[in-house]
Amino acid sequence: MASKKYVYRFDEGRADMKDLLGGKGANLAEMTRIGIPVPPGFIITTEACREFYIEGRKFPPGMEDQVREELKTLEKNTGKKMGDPENPLLVSIRSGAPISMPGMMDTVLNLGLNDQTVEGLARNTGDRRFAYDCYRRLLNMFGDVVLGIEHQKFERILEMQKDRKNVSFDHQLEAGDWEEVAREYKRLIERETSNPFPQDPMEQLFMAIYAVFNSWNNDRAKIYRKINKIPDDLGTAVNVQLMVFGNMGGDSGTGVAFTRDPSTGTNQLYGEYLINAQGEDVVAGIRTPQPISALEEEMPEVFRQFVDTCQLLERHYRNMQDIEFTIERGRLYMLQTRNGKRTAQAAIKIAVDMVKQGLITKEEAIMRVDPAQLNQILHRRINPSARLDVIAVGLPASPGAACGKIVFDADEAEKMGQEGEKVILVRTETTPDDIHGIVAAQGILTSRGGMTSHAAVVARGMGKPCVCGCEALRIDYDHEQFTVGGQVFRKGDLISIDGATGQVIRGEVPMVDPDLSDEFRELLRWADEVRTLGVRANADTPEDAAKARDFGAEGIGLTRTEHMFMAQDRLPIVQQMILAAGPEERSSALDKLLPMQRGDFYGILKAMEGLPVTIRLLDPPLHEFLPHAEELAVEITRLRMTGGSPGDLAGKEELLRKVRSLSEFNPMLGHRGCRLGITFPEVYEMQARAIFEAAAMLVREGRRVIPEVEIPLVIDVNELAYLKEMVVRVAGEVMKETGVSFEYTVGTMIEVPRAALLADEVAAEAEFFSFGTNDLTQTTLGFSRDDAEGKFMADYLGKKILEENPFVVLDRKGVGKLMKMAVDLGRKTKPDLLIGICGEHGGDPDSIEFCHQIGLNYVSCSPFRVPVARLAAAQAKIKNG
Amino acid sequence: MASKKYVYRFDEGRADMKDLLGGKGANLAEMTRIGIPVPPGFIITTEACREFYIEGRKFPPGMEDQVREELKTLEKNTGKKMGDPENPLLVSIRSGAPISMPGMMDTVLNLGLNDQTVEGLARNTGDRRFAYDCYRRLLNMFGDVVLGIEHQKFERILEMQKDRKNVSFDHQLEAGDWEEVAREYKRLIERETSNPFPQDPMEQLFMAIYAVFNSWNNDRAKIYRKINKIPDDLGTAVNVQLMVFGNMGGDSGTGVAFTRDPSTGTNQLYGEYLINAQGEDVVAGIRTPQPISALEEEMPEVFRQFVDTCQLLERHYRNMQDIEFTIERGRLYMLQTRNGKRTAQAAIKIAVDMVKQGLITKEEAIMRVDPAQLNQILHRRINPSARLDVIAVGLPASPGAACGKIVFDADEAEKMGQEGEKVILVRTETTPDDIHGIVAAQGILTSRGGMTSHAAVVARGMGKPCVCGCEALRIDYDHEQFTVGGQVFRKGDLISIDGATGQVIRGEVPMVDPDLSDEFRELLRWADEVRTLGVRANADTPEDAAKARDFGAEGIGLTRTEHMFMAQDRLPIVQQMILAAGPEERSSALDKLLPMQRGDFYGILKAMEGLPVTIRLLDPPLHEFLPHAEELAVEITRLRMTGGSPGDLAGKEELLRKVRSLSEFNPMLGHRGCRLGITFPEVYEMQARAIFEAAAMLVREGRRVIPEVEIPLVIDVNELAYLKEMVVRVAGEVMKETGVSFEYTVGTMIEVPRAALLADEVAAEAEFFSFGTNDLTQTTLGFSRDDAEGKFMADYLGKKILEENPFVVLDRKGVGKLMKMAVDLGRKTKPDLLIGICGEHGGDPDSIEFCHQIGLNYVSCSPFRVPVARLAAAQAKIKNG
Repeated sequence: MASKKYVYRFDEGRADMKDLLGGKGANLAEMTRIGIPVPPGFIITTEACREFYIEGRKFPPGMEDQVREELKTLEKNTGKKMGDPENPLLVSIRSGAPISMPGMMDTVLNLGLNDQTVEGLARNTGDRRFAYDCYRRLLNMFGDVVLGIEHQKFERILEMQKDRKNVSFDHQLEAGDWEEVAREYKRLIERETSNPFPQDPMEQLFMAIYAVFNSWNNDRAKIYRKINKIPDDLGTAVNVQLMVFGNMGGDSGTGVAFTRDPSTGTNQLYGEYLINAQGEDVVAGIRTPQPISALEEEMPEVFRQFVDTCQLLERHYRNMQDIEFTIERGRLYMLQTRNGKRTAQAAIKIAVDMVKQGLITKEEAIMRVDPAQLNQILHRRINPSARLDVIAVGLPASPGAACGKIVFDADEAEKMGQEGEKVILVRTETTPDDIHGIVAAQGILTSRGGMTSHAAVVARGMGKPCVCGCEALRIDYDHEQFTVGGQVFRKGDLISIDGATGQVIRGEVPMVDPDLSDEFRELLRWADEVRTLGVRANADTPEDAAKARDFGAEGIGLTRTEHMFMAQDRLPIVQQMILAAGPEERSSALDKLLPMQRGDFYGILKAMEGLPVTIRLLDPPLHEFLPHAEELAVEITRLRMTGGSPGDLAGKEELLRKVRSLSEFNPMLGHRGCRLGITFPEVYEMQARAIFEAAAMLVREGRRVIPEVEIPLVIDVNELAYLKEMVVRVAGEVMKETGVSFEYTVGTMIEVPRAALLADEVAAEAEFFSFGTNDLTQTTLGFSRDDAEGKFMADYLGKKILEENPFVVLDRKGVGKLMKMAVDLGRKTKPDLLIGICGEHGGDPDSIEFCHQIGLNYVSCSPFRVPVARLAAAQAKIKNG
Repeated sequence: MASKKYVYRFDEGRADMKDLLGGKGANLAEMTRIGIPVPPGFIITTEACREFYIEGRKFPPGMEDQVREELKTLEKNTGKKMGDPENPLLVSIRSGAPISMPGMMDTVLNLGLNDQTVEGLARNTGDRRFAYDCYRRLLNMFGDVVLGIEHQKFERILEMQKDRKNVSFDHQLEAGDWEEVAREYKRLIERETSNPFPQDPMEQLFMAIYAVFNSWNNDRAKIYRKINKIPDDLGTAVNVQLMVFGNMGGDSGTGVAFTRDPSTGTNQLYGEYLINAQGEDVVAGIRTPQPISALEEEMPEVFRQFVDTCQLLERHYRNMQDIEFTIERGRLYMLQTRNGKRTAQAAIKIAVDMVKQGLITKEEAIMRVDPAQLNQILHRRINPSARLDVIAVGLPASPGAACGKIVFDADEAEKMGQEGEKVILVRTETTPDDIHGIVAAQGILTSRGGMTSHAAVVARGMGKPCVCGCEALRIDYDHEQFTVGGQVFRKGDLISIDGATGQVIRGEVPMVDPDLSDEFRELLRWADEVRTLGVRANADTPEDAAKARDFGAEGIGLTRTEHMFMAQDRLPIVQQMILAAGPEERSSALDKLLPMQRGDFYGILKAMEGLPVTIRLLDPPLHEFLPHAEELAVEITRLRMTGGSPGDLAGKEELLRKVRSLSEFNPMLGHRGCRLGITFPEVYEMQARAIFEAAAMLVREGRRVIPEVEIPLVIDVNELAYLKEMVVRVAGEVMKETGVSFEYTVGTMIEVPRAALLADEVAAEAEFFSFGTNDLTQTTLGFSRDDAEGKFMADYLGKKILEENPFVVLDRKGVGKLMKMAVDLGRKTKPDLLIGICGEHGGDPDSIEFCHQIGLNYVSCSPFRVPVARLAAAQAKIKNG
């Protein structure tokens, strides 16, 4: 039986054979195929690697023979021979996985050198120093990579040699020194492995191939795959290629280049090179490379050839290329090409430019930009080139960066804010009492609480940077300072926070502002032409609504009314309402809130004139608006022991009783959402009235407004029917009182499994559904987000129990199954039912694709993510039709 | 078009026409049909009532004519005539709904009397006093029921007449007095309604029918229906029947009887009667009635006829009958028969006796006993005939009654318990620190916390009576007393609690012990023959396991291991494990726990020798084993202010930090269940080892044991696979170490929606499923049980948003849909997958029926409910096949 084909010559492969030949190999083959100068060689397939593992780390049968065969061809084509002291064939051995894993696996250069061939190389090149430099590099790499000898041990020998010669740099060493070093390296190898360095080049070759296969499963490769979610069973290919040398003198060199600027996208060659150097010298940064443009003067002919090749490669691949090249004695060789990594800004500019150049279609341009990367440019952020003194890392609770003076108290934050100071409010955690401080601060930093803690939710709502749950901080309110890692930070000290990474940084750092470039706006217009999924924003204020509209939102998918309740001037009234002894006192508080809420809704509806605005009635449990029981209990103890005024004490005790009676074991599953509307209909009634009175005012002003009244946390059609009846009644009353008629609809959140399971029934009373996937994820998985992310999510992801954090990427299998069910059941009852999503997943590209697949009408996300969603929705359409 | 038939003569109906004729009417018709002496009459159908409401409270067309028609027939058959002063026809008007609603709707007797016919009645009976007594009764009832005049106003006139005559009792009034009273009643009616009392008997009749229809929707009827879950749209029938009079002298009388003793089930006539009285006099209790046996001497002939009739009725209905009768001048009339209400004990005895008499089949006997009623006899309970001084009512958290001295401290409870005192532990709420007190107490009473509070869960686990969340109690630990309703109860005072009703009672009350009578055991044996659904018990101790086995449990469906962790001698070790600085310290604590857990499992497995025992690995969040943060914070404040020892303070502060770091926002959705196993595998490993070492010991003793290791709170097959691998490894290790092999399986709880949704995947790794419907209900509905039952469940049930409390009766539509899905998906992967339920629903008859329908293998419930489940499972099989 003829064995499988495990080895491909470069001229047998193509770019689309990446799975079999690895990325590097496939591109080497492709370049060879289209006539670009590439040192010849061959590729051992990823399949051979996979079988190597299946066979218990043995080469699959036939592979070795095929390698020997191709080596013979290589010898014939180059006129060199492995182990021939006269004209030795030297090769490089490089790994190359289907998905790039830079630096994770092993490479051996100059393979084929031994005590004889090194002399041949010296003779042929007339450069003994070069030859022994190559040899010692092989011994080092082979010793390290293939034989597993600590790199430091080679390093120490080299340093000793420099000491002996009393020099500081490698290039100060001479031929004899390298010869001495090579000798010492061979001794080291023999000492460490009890075997001499293999002088047989074929033995070297197979040992190196074995080592590369092995390196697929070294620790750093495994960790890299875990982090980058690369499957463990792909395997790596091995590239065996004729060595070319950039270190053969002043007419040799090596470099890397991008066909366009990878950080701005500008259409000009970008890169650098070193004369008389090997590739690793560029990476190591020992000498400062020259910009690629300098090559034009130094070697005009080579430069022109290089520019032509770059253009050819870009046109061929129809994408910006990341290229490695070597010049050996005036001859240009390409050693690698691949699609270049780029910043979000560059990705956008390159994609749009390439459409204009006719290189790619608009759809391809849309697919070229990774929506996840856009976060980089949609928030104020720390200048990526800044050096940071990171003192701690917390949870990245609300993206954006901020800088300011440390302040520990909300009142003080407000005062300093009014005086024009920039402050960062630092608290163990925040409560509604801190809202005015949060408003005044540039950013929020807490030492406790998760991604849905008060600070995080409020900050995200305000689009304000927040790092929370930064447990390394020890906050000492009494002394107005915090300590972290033994350092003390006092009130007034400057710190910066990065809400996108969770970093807390000493001092002030330079920032970069967000910006929708013209190219970006153009790309998004193309995306809008393609996508069928609508994009709305979650916004609680007219400012946010306006921002969202500017970013292209086609409506508001979620307006939370509770944040309005938490404003400092309202909180006392809200508390009065909650603590009311009876309906009368409650209704007097509600009377005071009505005009305020009407004002809120007036502003938002006006900002979104002509577009739908989903307004969710009060959702959080009432105790969120009250002080904490523990703080009260401590205060009462203090009052008792210091003999404070009996009136004070009694008041606090009464308040504590009420707080306790409202406190809940599991607030997430407690008395909130429409359950509040069922037990305190007057609260929802006030809100409905505020919405409709605002709508009537705007209609009278000649504006079209489309409020969608949303009932949260429904589990049964009966809740919806009960509350809808009230809403419809109030709408009728307002129309009668004002003599104005206005549009409106009534619908519901789907955020509890039961609502999804019974969506056919619920749809009978709902004019729209909106998936609240934050809560739906919490209930479907039985995961309290704050608790999960603080306590066990890391283990769940680390042990691969879950592939992704389900609060970031929608859990398609579980939550998605329920959503699909709800869509199908809901549309069974009402084929035209409007269905959207307003959980944080509405801004996540992967989740947006799923929303497209199951036929939602729109996604709704934070204003800053609206561009992300527009792009992701277009990509979903292109991928899924 | 001929109108619908709205009126049925008694001889036109049958017992099975209850929906149309109402219960009373159908049975009057049935008795008429089988030749039992019933005063003639006719029935206006429930359909007429329903149409009455549809038409806006108007009689449906044709109904009145049909009534007139049947009245003529009645006149012909009786020889009497409505309004005929010579021989007036008098009738009673009684409501009669398809489902009995005793006392809820209206009745008018003696209808047909007016100023003329009363004289005729006087002449014909020769008893003027009797005639005017009848007349004034009509005026009173008609005035009250039909005309809506306050009953008190009639009462006052009667009292004035007695004052005038200077007498105390009705029977001291003479004919003239009644005449005078009737006159005053008529004046009252004219004054109140501006119309005289209608003298036309036909007008009286239709007004009375109208009033009965109307009374279907009076407030007390509506409330009764709500409480008893009777649909609002059934409507009531109206029975028009010839009056017979038990108050016509010494040869007349009236009474009620049961064909068997309704409290014991003994097969002998049971009832009482009054000579010379109308039915309402028996009910009113003005005179003491005589036992039915006395009738044999007073009227032997009538008695024999009555006994025969009773036997006939019982044989005819094949059920114990509740009968009303009247004797008019020596003639016996039956006025009502219906299946008699009975105690659980009686229901069982009657059913079993009737099988032995050949009256009913075993299957019918099984269907005759309401499983819900069995609670009465399966717990120690308060003697139903005791007079109770109820001082407050809390949540019925754990059934059973208990009595003892009040004690406010767990240590003291333990001390007094050891001295042989019976105590009730009274706490605002309990914590794990109180366990030894709970163990020592007869029962637990708390002022805070819901049905799943610590006290409730622990008490139910121990089968110990508990009333919790009794908010009326103000507990004052400092003075060792509580106040309720202005009364003070001190340490040492005697109280009783009833955990089945939530009542808290002053003093000691007489108790009745639970008892499985021979008849009950026989009935349950029949049930076992019929049912296909298995019945297991939830038990955490060998004692409970033994009890469950005695009650017929076929295995343990849930052994919770956490209660074992809470034992007073273990808690410090458990806390040491939790607070451990690192794995080493943790493992030293686990080493101490291992032999204890092994002992636990040894005991339970031994008690259930030969039967399967499902052992759930640790489930609750770790902070449940630690003190409360608030208490610690208060203590720290106190220590600081009093300048306590710095060491103490630092220790408490460190503990508080740890408690805080473990505390959770929503513990129900937090770091618990298998999430603990994922993050602290060593805890689960210790438990697995304890189980298997116990199993090995028992196998070596020659016993067969079948442990089923259960992984809780699974949401993904990966969790199960990860932990199962560990369990299987440990089993292998133990087998190797002990040289003993043993049976075991590994399976999972299905208690989170995602597990149900992905049950096909989960089943691949599971050898069994057990539905944890308590948690599954919490997550599917997004209801925290403790919060829901304390805060909004009452509104949800009151406003009919939900039909039933879903924590008591399984929510078939939502939770049930998920369960069905999980069963189908699970069996798709493994057709023979063993599936059970261990939530509290496993003891609820309605939920058991559903479990039978969706094909579960078994239900598991608390030991005391095992007989309930056996019966309910048999009923489910009989009903559903």
